[in-house]
Amino acid sequence: MKFRRKDFFKAIALGTISMPFLLRSVLSDTKAQGKSANVSGRTYNWKMVTTWPPNFPILGEACQAYADMVEKMSGGRMNIQVYGGGELVPALECFDTVRSGAAEIGSGAAYYWAGKTPAAQFFASVPFGMNAQQVTAWIYDGGGMELWEELYAKYSLIPMLGGNTGVQMGGWFNKEINTIEDFKGLKMRIPGLGGKVLEKAGGAPVLLAGGEIYTGLERGIIDATEWLGPYHDTQMGFDDIARYYYSPGWHEPGTALEYIFNKEKFESLPPDLQAILRTASYYINNWVMARMEARNAATLAKLKDKGVEIRTFSPEILEQLRKHTNEVIADITAKDAFARKVYESYNDFRQKASAYANITERLFYSSIQAI
Amino acid sequence: MKFRRKDFFKAIALGTISMPFLLRSVLSDTKAQGKSANVSGRTYNWKMVTTWPPNFPILGEACQAYADMVEKMSGGRMNIQVYGGGELVPALECFDTVRSGAAEIGSGAAYYWAGKTPAAQFFASVPFGMNAQQVTAWIYDGGGMELWEELYAKYSLIPMLGGNTGVQMGGWFNKEINTIEDFKGLKMRIPGLGGKVLEKAGGAPVLLAGGEIYTGLERGIIDATEWLGPYHDTQMGFDDIARYYYSPGWHEPGTALEYIFNKEKFESLPPDLQAILRTASYYINNWVMARMEARNAATLAKLKDKGVEIRTFSPEILEQLRKHTNEVIADITAKDAFARKVYESYNDFRQKASAYANITERLFYSSIQAI
Repeated sequence: MKFRRKDFFKAIALGTISMPFLLRSVLSDTKAQGKSANVSGRTYNWKMVTTWPPNFPILGEACQAYADMVEKMSGGRMNIQVYGGGELVPALECFDTVRSGAAEIGSGAAYYWAGKTPAAQFFASVPFGMNAQQVTAWIYDGGGMELWEELYAKYSLIPMLGGNTGVQMGGWFNKEINTIEDFKGLKMRIPGLGGKVLEKAGGAPVLLAGGEIYTGLERGIIDATEWLGPYHDTQMGFDDIARYYYSPGWHEPGTALEYIFNKEKFESLPPDLQAILRTASYYINNWVMARMEARNAATLAKLKDKGVEIRTFSPEILEQLRKHTNEVIADITAKDAFARKVYESYNDFRQKASAYANITERLFYSSIQAI
Repeated sequence: MKFRRKDFFKAIALGTISMPFLLRSVLSDTKAQGKSANVSGRTYNWKMVTTWPPNFPILGEACQAYADMVEKMSGGRMNIQVYGGGELVPALECFDTVRSGAAEIGSGAAYYWAGKTPAAQFFASVPFGMNAQQVTAWIYDGGGMELWEELYAKYSLIPMLGGNTGVQMGGWFNKEINTIEDFKGLKMRIPGLGGKVLEKAGGAPVLLAGGEIYTGLERGIIDATEWLGPYHDTQMGFDDIARYYYSPGWHEPGTALEYIFNKEKFESLPPDLQAILRTASYYINNWVMARMEARNAATLAKLKDKGVEIRTFSPEILEQLRKHTNEVIADITAKDAFARKVYESYNDFRQKASAYANITERLFYSSIQAI
């Protein structure tokens, strides 16, 4: 929609503003008379399978908050039973479980499905990619959602955004990382694209499930690990057994979380319940982002008192890792046409958002050091 | 909630995870049998008065999007008629109109009500204050909402968050601003706290309604004006008549928008419709933020082609303006106890969020220059 100042203020000046107002009043009355409330009393008992450990802070809790809000909004007509990873099916079977309709809803992050379709991971997180504000804008208003829906429709799924972790931390180390050479031979728990980048830098990404990381790091099976941010990391106890806490989380600058719905089941719902399930995902998107920001900040304040050494990767290290990231992404987009299409949209948005951030958010954050 | 890694992974290891699962399954069945859907068929026709010009891009359009989504979710039981500023009551009478119950909902920004209660403005924007991500986290999970509700309850209102503009631009000028001295005698359209800060810097803030700014700037009645960001500013035509476009918008680093509800009317609604109205505000919060980010970025890309000179205020200028801001805030909090209480919460959250951002978002935005 394009309009000019001249047009809409002219309308006010000329008094024509009363016309649409009158018209709308008339239309509104007609509408109110011609339509009656249309709510079916039928109740639905749905299942949500999740990739999160049971009661996992914020990310798992959000699923219950989603279910609770949907129940309230629907007046009890839509009841969602939430299952932690492994309770009903293993965490990484959520995609197939919802696809088959054995559960109607799933909660996770799109990069878990990279093995099924490499394009999926661009809807979760890209090393040196967009942050929460940018990726949310791309998905909701920059063409991202349309591509995401197109991709998931191939699997009979509908995706919705369900939160974002914000810029994560770079991980816990027991030795200093002063140059890119320090990654050589480093055994680090870092999954996904970040792991591939580490590999290109000469490191050894190690796959460990959440429950194995603490012991692995304590016993020296791994030299380092990333997880999320201060709030989650300290609940894992990493601050007790690692000396250095590095930032930023170059590998996950703003990981988007998702809800997935069985397409057929979702579309068979009455329109009001469909709208309720959709809107609840926006509620959770805010709910998660606010908690990540507030609780990570509060925990960091305590961590500093505890004596953990917080370090930042040097610009030179980040530059090298960025180069390796570009190689990894080039590999993916060369092999898969849909991944290429998604990344082109992602990258085009990122270029524009970065130019804008360069004169707005970047200057804002530069100035916070003076506080 | 505090739990340790040891506890929850121990639960998985020991296989006790099946216990809550079983328990919950049993409870769930009981719940489903004991409860029936509880939705009243009664319809409501409510009015939303707004501070925005009719069909104002994004901010005004969001109100209609809110009404549409509420209608969908409620299956037509809640119909909201949206009025632009001046259509039903003048823009700045929204607060009193909703307070009296003559309209049930209002849309605006809390700083419009600074004359009624100075604490209100801290829920909208503070010069050199928090940005969108931070202020949203403070309101939703940092104690801000509780204070906002406490304040507005005195006026029989309930506040909800309804979007954020993001970091705004610093405004349009026809002369360069190279030192703080260049603000001396400058006639600039800049309302609110920003205007007070300009005044302390020797400038002359001028009050002009939206419809008068273009002509005022064209005819030299004002030397400069701020508005929002590239998307809105170019629709006002400022790029045709001003030479320099300055950043950042130090006076509005992340202006939160609000919905206000008549408390008695809201609380008289059935619980499902209350939940629907609440959740819809979260939907709009995302809706607005995504559009502001995406469309400002897209417009900026075009603006650069057009030859507008984009400048940034120097760190020295910003430092001076920040000092004046602290004086202005000290004046407000010295005179009003509730404003002091709100600002203490705001500032405490900001300190923690800034320390966290310093090792996350700041580093992220520093690195975008390399893209």
